[in-house]
Amino acid sequence: MKIAIASDHAAIDMKAELRDWLIEQGHEVADLGPDSTDSVDYPDYGYLLAGVVADGTAERGIALCGSGIGISIAVNRNPQVRCALVSEPLSASLAREHNDANIIAMGARIIGPELAKACIAAFLETGFAGGRHQRRVDKLTNPS
Amino acid sequence: MKIAIASDHAAIDMKAELRDWLIEQGHEVADLGPDSTDSVDYPDYGYLLAGVVADGTAERGIALCGSGIGISIAVNRNPQVRCALVSEPLSASLAREHNDANIIAMGARIIGPELAKACIAAFLETGFAGGRHQRRVDKLTNPS
Repeated sequence: MKIAIASDHAAIDMKAELRDWLIEQGHEVADLGPDSTDSVDYPDYGYLLAGVVADGTAERGIALCGSGIGISIAVNRNPQVRCALVSEPLSASLAREHNDANIIAMGARIIGPELAKACIAAFLETGFAGGRHQRRVDKLTNPS
Repeated sequence: MKIAIASDHAAIDMKAELRDWLIEQGHEVADLGPDSTDSVDYPDYGYLLAGVVADGTAERGIALCGSGIGISIAVNRNPQVRCALVSEPLSASLAREHNDANIIAMGARIIGPELAKACIAAFLETGFAGGRHQRRVDKLTNPS
């Protein structure tokens, strides 16, 4: 699967570990940065990630920052994507099943890398249930 | 404090319990619905809640659905508000301190009412740190 990953400076170590793990799993991974611990603004990377998922360059996205909160808000400013902030695999699975989420956000200061991998695995393996959930997802794409 | 609370049908029991608890604490609470277990679409209630916080009718908002995911995405479509999906008090506190969040979302199927109350207490008690965080928050208000 084509997966894009982005973070802020607080999460670059987790980003590197998750990126390498995804590549080992056979995924094609685009690391959108940042590359150093220099302080950056999470909205810049959130908007970048949302853009590449919205235009189809990536099928799924992974957004990381210290708490996961700031970057998840930024990503969800784009009505063409649906980002779930998660800290355990059940929510990662429900995000796919009920919300057709195409991006998950996690906090590098909140959960460790192995729990993050379990969240990503649930996110990548679970399908969208459709049905009554489709109408709600459509309303997220067309806010009025 | 003026607090608005909204949910979908999956979270009306938690909404009622949190609303009554907030009133006992001396807050002025606007319950934006729904009032029954009839199936509704979480985006409708998310947009309604975002609107009353954005226009200042409420100072803070609480958004609930089964997982908290769907309604948190809906709320964050409005660039005038910042909604953090949380499942423990540390994240609720960081959402205020770093992101100046004015709405928190929680999942009624993920956490119980006492943990939700602890999240709300942290959310209401914590101030925004400002400084370098202000520039990032400004970027969430003016996505470009």
